[in-house]
This record gives sequence, structure tokens and C-alpha cells, in this order.
Amino acid sequence: MVDYVAPVSDMAFVLREVLDFPGVQKRHPELTEEFVEAILGEAGKFATDIFGPLNRVGDAEGVRLQDDEVVLPSGFAEAYSRFVDNGWQGLAQPVEYGGQGLPFVLHMAVSEMWNSACTSLALCPLLTSGAIEALTSHASDELKDRYLPKLVTGQWSATMNLTEPHAGSDLSSLRTRADPEGDHYRIRGQKVFITWGEHPMAENIVHIVLAPMVDAPPGVKGLSLFLVPKYLVNADGEIGVRNDLKAIGVEKKLGIHGSPTCAMSFGEADGAIGYLIGEPGQGLACMFTLMNHARLEVGLQAVALSERAFQDALAYARERVQGVDAATGAPAKIIAHADVQRMLMLMMSLTQAMRAMAYEGAVSYDARHRADTSEQRELHEQRFGLLTPIVKAWSTELVNEITSLAIQVHGGMGFIEETGVAQHYRDARITAIYEGTNGIQANDLVSRKLIRDQGAGINSLLEDIATTIDEMAEDKALSGFGSALAPAAQALKSITSLILDRADEDPHFVGRVAFNFLMMMGYICGAWYMARSAQAAIGQLGAGKGDVGFYQRKLTAARFYMTQVLPRYQGYETAIRSGEDVGARLDVESFG
Amino acid sequence: MVDYVAPVSDMAFVLREVLDFPGVQKRHPELTEEFVEAILGEAGKFATDIFGPLNRVGDAEGVRLQDDEVVLPSGFAEAYSRFVDNGWQGLAQPVEYGGQGLPFVLHMAVSEMWNSACTSLALCPLLTSGAIEALTSHASDELKDRYLPKLVTGQWSATMNLTEPHAGSDLSSLRTRADPEGDHYRIRGQKVFITWGEHPMAENIVHIVLAPMVDAPPGVKGLSLFLVPKYLVNADGEIGVRNDLKAIGVEKKLGIHGSPTCAMSFGEADGAIGYLIGEPGQGLACMFTLMNHARLEVGLQAVALSERAFQDALAYARERVQGVDAATGAPAKIIAHADVQRMLMLMMSLTQAMRAMAYEGAVSYDARHRADTSEQRELHEQRFGLLTPIVKAWSTELVNEITSLAIQVHGGMGFIEETGVAQHYRDARITAIYEGTNGIQANDLVSRKLIRDQGAGINSLLEDIATTIDEMAEDKALSGFGSALAPAAQALKSITSLILDRADEDPHFVGRVAFNFLMMMGYICGAWYMARSAQAAIGQLGAGKGDVGFYQRKLTAARFYMTQVLPRYQGYETAIRSGEDVGARLDVESFG
Repeated sequence: MVDYVAPVSDMAFVLREVLDFPGVQKRHPELTEEFVEAILGEAGKFATDIFGPLNRVGDAEGVRLQDDEVVLPSGFAEAYSRFVDNGWQGLAQPVEYGGQGLPFVLHMAVSEMWNSACTSLALCPLLTSGAIEALTSHASDELKDRYLPKLVTGQWSATMNLTEPHAGSDLSSLRTRADPEGDHYRIRGQKVFITWGEHPMAENIVHIVLAPMVDAPPGVKGLSLFLVPKYLVNADGEIGVRNDLKAIGVEKKLGIHGSPTCAMSFGEADGAIGYLIGEPGQGLACMFTLMNHARLEVGLQAVALSERAFQDALAYARERVQGVDAATGAPAKIIAHADVQRMLMLMMSLTQAMRAMAYEGAVSYDARHRADTSEQRELHEQRFGLLTPIVKAWSTELVNEITSLAIQVHGGMGFIEETGVAQHYRDARITAIYEGTNGIQANDLVSRKLIRDQGAGINSLLEDIATTIDEMAEDKALSGFGSALAPAAQALKSITSLILDRADEDPHFVGRVAFNFLMMMGYICGAWYMARSAQAAIGQLGAGKGDVGFYQRKLTAARFYMTQVLPRYQGYETAIRSGEDVGARLDVESFG
Repeated sequence: MVDYVAPVSDMAFVLREVLDFPGVQKRHPELTEEFVEAILGEAGKFATDIFGPLNRVGDAEGVRLQDDEVVLPSGFAEAYSRFVDNGWQGLAQPVEYGGQGLPFVLHMAVSEMWNSACTSLALCPLLTSGAIEALTSHASDELKDRYLPKLVTGQWSATMNLTEPHAGSDLSSLRTRADPEGDHYRIRGQKVFITWGEHPMAENIVHIVLAPMVDAPPGVKGLSLFLVPKYLVNADGEIGVRNDLKAIGVEKKLGIHGSPTCAMSFGEADGAIGYLIGEPGQGLACMFTLMNHARLEVGLQAVALSERAFQDALAYARERVQGVDAATGAPAKIIAHADVQRMLMLMMSLTQAMRAMAYEGAVSYDARHRADTSEQRELHEQRFGLLTPIVKAWSTELVNEITSLAIQVHGGMGFIEETGVAQHYRDARITAIYEGTNGIQANDLVSRKLIRDQGAGINSLLEDIATTIDEMAEDKALSGFGSALAPAAQALKSITSLILDRADEDPHFVGRVAFNFLMMMGYICGAWYMARSAQAAIGQLGAGKGDVGFYQRKLTAARFYMTQVLPRYQGYETAIRSGEDVGARLDVESFG
């Protein structure tokens, strides 16, 4: 394992050359190219020097519960404290609450760095960001004024409390209850899988809790959202008495050992005091503000762990001597072997595609509030909704493959924990599960983002892809990319129609095809980003600008993706087409 | 996690109805259907009762080195002792050395059970079996007489010593040396990654060591194979003095915690005494006897862990209530959700295909020595050679996906170590690495099994597949299977020609396409086994024999495979076809 070094050039390339950077600048005029470089450079140093060294420590030491307190791995609290002092939490947060108001996509780039350097620790500010978003969007001014300033600095952290022991993804049967009492509520119940639910790094922890009021109707429509602080906060903003809640357990997990996953108990004595966020019965809608934010960032964690695993594999492949070069017969570093090159390029090109998609999701996230016209805002809202489940699920499926490839490049050494690369494989595995399993993401994509708008969002995306294809057709150096992308886009269009035509036939149809559709769409969207990456690279090379080797490598990665990765969509397409008649018609009796 | 229950009906179905059981019976007339059932039944009980409870114990306790001795997890030694007492080690071993002489394919079925129940413990007899094969094939009568009887009972275990710290898969640069001294050699050097290299379960440990003699020519042609016992063995077969070798470390690994992976030091004092196996300079050829055996069994470990993971996922899916049935709106066990059914059937159908392929490999393994005519023996030798890298690599790639799916079905609970399913994911990850990484298997398939015989082995397989397709065309109930399989077989034929045509063009060509070819061939061969499984099921249903539900489920699994799994070959095919011009031409500069 080598020290993580933030891929600043790659990130800046996506931000400034692949995405619509002029559009971002129009909404954030302070964002000069030099400013982007300065921020990424500083964040990269912080990630390498402060978070990076804690990754193995966190894994090896893990966390434990002692007298209702979480004991963290060595160095975590100090590193978090420096993170707060350096102002990283507030980078993209509202200026009126002390944030720097920079665009979310810039936050994504630095958040990728925190997650590459130490995913376990990075999860704490990740949850805080989501809670800030939920409070900004839905809380009363009084709650905002009292809680946001210290969340924005990171002095206080936040959590997201949905899951209960009997109900994982099923929020319609929550048993935690909220009793009204004056201007607040008394919360009673247990929540599980609460990331950073208890810890000593922050002065206060703001729990965002989903629960029905006592007299609420059953089901998700009865759910409300509450702010339940670890310590009550006085009117002057200072910390008051301890609230009636505590951690009652921390899980022993496959990965992210440095991140305390807590079972929380609310209100064992008098009931924990909580404050309503948004309207009664609107809890799920408010929580989705937090969840959509978090889903994009979980997809980003997949990018981050893929990048980290790639860096380790590349360093090892450059150093390890094994066998001989097939061409020269001389002893070779394993990077000279074609199969090792295949594995490394698979990791590299997928990571690039995933990164561009996640960052573009963040651009839409910003623009849906800040774009000039309501039409543009709506288009960005639609695009953000469409990309979110793909960023989340496609990327988190692939991170398992990519971190596995990193092990494979290491051979037997990869299986030894001390090497460090197995940790990425273990840490990555949760990302396909939390913030809504990938099955739920696939269902969200097909039910809410395809069927609900009758394909409008996908058609709009397909129009943008068609524009890219048209542009590439005019340039000899790019026409190969266009002719690889065109049949894939056509297939996506055709499968979209097929799903719209057949969705009503059978209540299980969506569930049968959703995952395959999500993966198919992920690979095709990934190809679009790689095509745009190639366009940008050809543009720079044609203009004789920048690092020639850098842009040529971007072209190589894009070509590899088009010829070696994109074809995977075919298997998913065929499965969707042929599935309805035979194999996909399963039932509970199919398994004996 | 539920108790492992051996899938005896599934195993017997493959053995008796999918494979050429009459052919096996011809070579082993003692093998009646009832006898098969009795053996599988007994083995199944032993696996559930004796090995099964140790799986979690082994993972949690792990192993450690204390004063040159390995301390094992609780219960391992007792279980192994019962394994020896019950005669399981000798099931398919030569009668002249105390074995039962049953066919290797029956051993495969029971070995699958040991590996499902407790992979870590099952690795010990797995290595012993390989060593028995190597000694039987290559050792002198004196060595055979002295060592085989107690290896066949399992009172002694064996190991395979290839890897050295500086050289993982590269055997041309081994530094361990063998000095001739009278009728034996003095072995000096270090070996790493030695599975069950030291432990107290067996009275003696027979190390099979690959090393050059002091004056040997450099490279793999200078390698010889040596038998180096932990304790020397007197002429009367009794254990003598301790040899000069010891374990100097055990690895901390991602998985198989209960299996000691040792660093071994040979000859630190006077040199360890070793005996030549086979001819000088023939070490690698002799070792391949052991390795081919072990490669088939590592592929079988993938089957075993997939089966175990599937059982856990199925049990959880039947018990966990989440959400509502999409058709009825009533609260549902998660097995009612189409996406969960997709995951379960993916696991189940892949496991069935992998099992049939591994078992057929074992049939050929036997038949290449025992078939009636030399022509048949050669055909089986060829088929065994062809199937071995696919059984090893295709299955061990898929076991990562299958054990990952088992985690996914469990949702957040899957990430909690106590649930037990994460262990399968961790344990499985080594199988794609040891006994030759999957990259090496792919290279073996393309270089030695396709190019060397100019496609003869694959063409012979394609003829057998064509026969199946022809048979199915005549039966309306099966014609759908034939029409799914036919284009896949055609694609395999066409890609085989493409590789033969282009292999000489570029020394890196094979390395670029080998992995994709192996995966493509794996999925297509898997489809052939599932087609034959469907044939067998239709045959039984037509004859009105047996359990109707059982055979209908076999048909469902086969249909699912044909429509949802087989299409994956298309992505690999397209990657091979399009790769040569663009994406696949990578070099060491491609990564910056």
C-alpha cells in the first residue's frame, strides 16, 4: 500500500474540461480555474497528510463501546479537529450560516479525497453535509439559526436515523414514536445502523430521526422528521443539558471498522426531546433531501475507494518483478504483462467514468436551485433525479470489482491484510447496501425516473448523448467513439420503450428487469462521459495545449472503455429482452 | 447463517443424470445408484455435524504460531481425527495403499461438502489428495510404500511448496537449493504461502518441495521435486527423528482464518533431508500432476462456497419480512420480491452450472487413465486439460459475485460479521489467486489448450455441444434451450478461429484476450451443462419418474441461466473482437 495522492489533474480535468465548467462559473463567478487548482491542491495535501495515515489504524483498532461512550481509533479525533479548524466542512455550505458557498461539485472533488484517504473517518462529515442540506431545505428559521452554524463548521456532527431492528429498508412499519409536548416532541424507540451515531469528536451530535407521531396514520405517510440533539442547545446557541438518548451498541463489521455503526436508544427515561423538521407527515419527503445528497456521496465513496485501490495496484505492478516480458523475454515488472495492463486499465477507465458521472450529478444538484431559468432548473432537477440512482448503484457495484482487481494484481500478497489492499475490498462492500440497497436504487430508477415521467428524463439524456455523437461524427479522430456509442444509445432507447410498453402487464415486471436496466444504463452513460473525455482530450491536443502525455492517456482510457467495458451492456440488454418469457418468471417456489 | 445441509439430491442429479454415469459405472462397476446415495448421505451428515460447526470458530479464533508450533482453532484437531477415523481421505485413493479406489468424481462430491462446511479445515485433506496423486504418478516404489499408506488414511497430511518470497507465480527464479548427499538431498531455503504447512492434527507432514539441484541449469527446466517430511520415516514405516525444517510465520489473511498459511524454513541447521520424486529436472512436470488436481479442487471450493452462501441467503430471504408483495400489497417475505428472486436464482443457477462442470472435469480426470481405449483416454486427457483452467478460473471469479450476492440479500445484516455470510465473501477471495492466479489459468487455456493443439480440444468440445443442440432440436420442450445455445457455440467457434489467426501477430495478443476468452468460454460451457440438466429433467418428467417439483425447478434454473446469465458472453466476445485495434493495445506508459 502506498500513500494516497489525490489525483488533482484528473479531477480538474473532469471539472474544467469534461463538464460544463462555464455553466458552473456563471452560477459561481468566484470559481476561477486557479481557484479550483488551489483548493484541490490544499485538500489533496490535507487528505494525504492528515486523513491518509489513519486508514490502516482505523481498520486495525476499530471502535468499541465503553460506558455508553464510543472509543475511537487513535488519531481520529485530532484529525477531525484539524478538518474543522481548516474549514473543510463548510466549503459548499450556505454563506449565511458561515459556509463558503462554493459549488457542490467542488465539494464532491474534495469529499472524494477524504473518502479515498480514510473512508471511515470521511463518513462523519458526509452525514453532517446531508443533515445541513435537510435542515436548510425544511427546518424553521429558529432551528436553522440554532443548529446550522456549528454544523457548518463541523464542530457538531449529524446522523441519519431511519432503520429499526425489525425493518431494514421498509420504513412503513417504524415503531419509534414522537409525542407532542409544548414546542417539542418526546421521542422514544430504537434505531440501528446509525453511522457515527455516538463519538467524542464533535461537541454535539444532531440526530435526524424519522418517526411517526403517536396519532399518525400508518405507513410512510404518517412519518415526520425530527431533530434530536445529543445535548440540548440553549437559546444563546450554547450547549445545554444532555438529552435522553444514547448508543447501546456498536457493530462488528466486514469493513469501515473505524466508523462507529451504532444502535441508538431514544427516550429510555423521560423521552428524548426532539423538534419537528418541516411539516407533520412530510418526514419521508424531507428525509429524501438528505438521502439524495447521501446517495450521490455514497456513489462518490465508490469512486474514492476505486481510485485508492487503483493507486495501490499500480504502484505494486510497477515494482513487483515476475516472469518475463512476452515480447523481449527479459525479466519484467508485472505492469509489462498484458493481463495486468487489462486489470489496471479496467480499474482506471471505470474509475474515470464513475467520477465524471458523480461530479455531473453534483453539477445538476447545484443547478436545480441556481440555474437562470425555471426551465433549466427543472431540467437539472430531472437530470439529478435520473443520475442519482445510477451514480449510487452502478458505481457501488463496480467498486467491488475494482477493489477485487486490486487484490488480484497483488496476487497472494493481496490476500494478506498487512498489504492493505484487502481493506479497500472490505470497506467498499457496504456501499451497495447503505443509503438504499442497489435493488432499491434500481427500482427508483425504473419506477420513479423512467415510468413516472414516461421516459422524458431518459429521452432528454439521450438527446444530449445524440448531440455528442453528432459532434464526434464531424471529427475523424473521434468518429470511432461515436460509432461505438451510437448503437448503445439506440439500445437504451429501445429498452426504455420496451419497459414502458410492458410495465403494466405484470406487477413484478419492474422488479425483474430493474437491476439489469440500471447496469445497462450505467455502462452506457459511462461511455458518454468517456466520449466527452476523449472530445476534451482531442480538443486540447489539437490546440497544442497542456500535457500531451496526459491527454493521450485520457484517449487510451476512453478507447479501452469503448471497446472493453461498454460491450457489457449487451448482456444486460439481452437479459431484459429475453427474460420476460422464460427465465425471469420466478416465484417463491422456484427455489425448492 | 443456517447449518449447512449437503445438497445431496442436486449432487446425485449431476452425477447420475447429467454426466455420463454409465461410463463411470463401466470403469467402477461397484458404483451402484444406491451406493452413491449411501456415500453422499453419510458424507452429508459428517459435513453438517462435524465440520459445519467449526466454520465460524475457525474464522473467529484463527491460528497463531507459538514456539514454532501452530495453535489451531478449537475443535479442528478432533474433527480432523474423526475424518481420518471414518476413512474419508482414502475414498478415491488407490486400493493397494489402503484406499477405497472409488472414482474421483465421487470424491469431488464429498470434497464439495467438506469445503462448504468448513473451507479452512477442508484445505488440509485437499492438499494431501494432491500429494498422493503426485507420489502415485511419479515417486519410486520405495517412497510410495513408505509414505502413501499413512497419507491415504490421512494420519499424515501433505503440503505443496512452490512460492518463495521474491517470486510468486514465477518459478524460474527459485532460490531454495537441493544438495545431493547419498540416497537423499539436503534442502535449504524458504517457502511462503504454504497452506497447512505446520499443524498438530497429523502425526507427520509430507512437504512436496519444488527446488533446483545445486548444479541445475537456470529456469524451470532445472527444477526437481522433493519429498521432505517433517519427521523422517524409518524403514519399518514408523516415525523417526525430526527433520530440519519449521514454520517461521503464519499470515494474517482476509479469509480462511482457520487454515494456517505458513512461511517455512528448510535446512537452517544441517539442511533438511529430502527425497527426489521422479527424474531430476522433471520437477515442474511432476508438480503439475499435483497442481492440476488442486486446480480442479480449488474450482470446487468455489462451488462449495457458492452453495453455502446460497443456502444462507435463501434461508434469510424466506424468513425476513420487508415491504409488500408487488402483486398483492400484503406484507412480504423478501423472497417474494422479484429482485431478490433474481439474486437467488443467479446464485443457484450459476452454482449448478459450476458444479456440473467441476464434476465432469473429475470424470475426465479418472477416465484419462481408466477408459477402455487409448483413443478414449486421449480424448479425456484433452478434455480434462481444457476444463481444468475453466473450472478453476471461471468458478473462482463467480464465487466472488455469488458470495457478494449473499451479502446483498441480507442487506445491512450481511455486513455484520456475526451474521456469518461476510465470511464466505472473505474466504472465497483467495480462490481466484492460489493454485495459479486466474490470469495464469487464462493464459494456460489459450496458450496450451487452444493454440498448442490448434483448437482440436475446443473443436471436440464444440462437437459435443452440437450433439446436444441437435438432440434438443427434436424435442419441443427443449428446442428453446438449443436455440439459445447454438449462437453461443457459433460465437465460441468463431472467436477460437480469430485467436488462432491472430496469435502470432503480436507477442502480447494472447495476454490481451485470454481472460475475456476464458470467461466467454466459461459462460458458454456452463450453458451446455444447464442444457444437459434440462434434458435430464425433461427426460425424467416425461417418464413420470421422481419428484416433479425437483425436475421443474431444474428446468426453471436452466431457463434462467439461458436467458439471464448466458448473454454475458456477448460482452466478452465484443471485447475480444474490438480490442485488437484500439483499447487493448496498452503498454506500461498507459497509466501515467
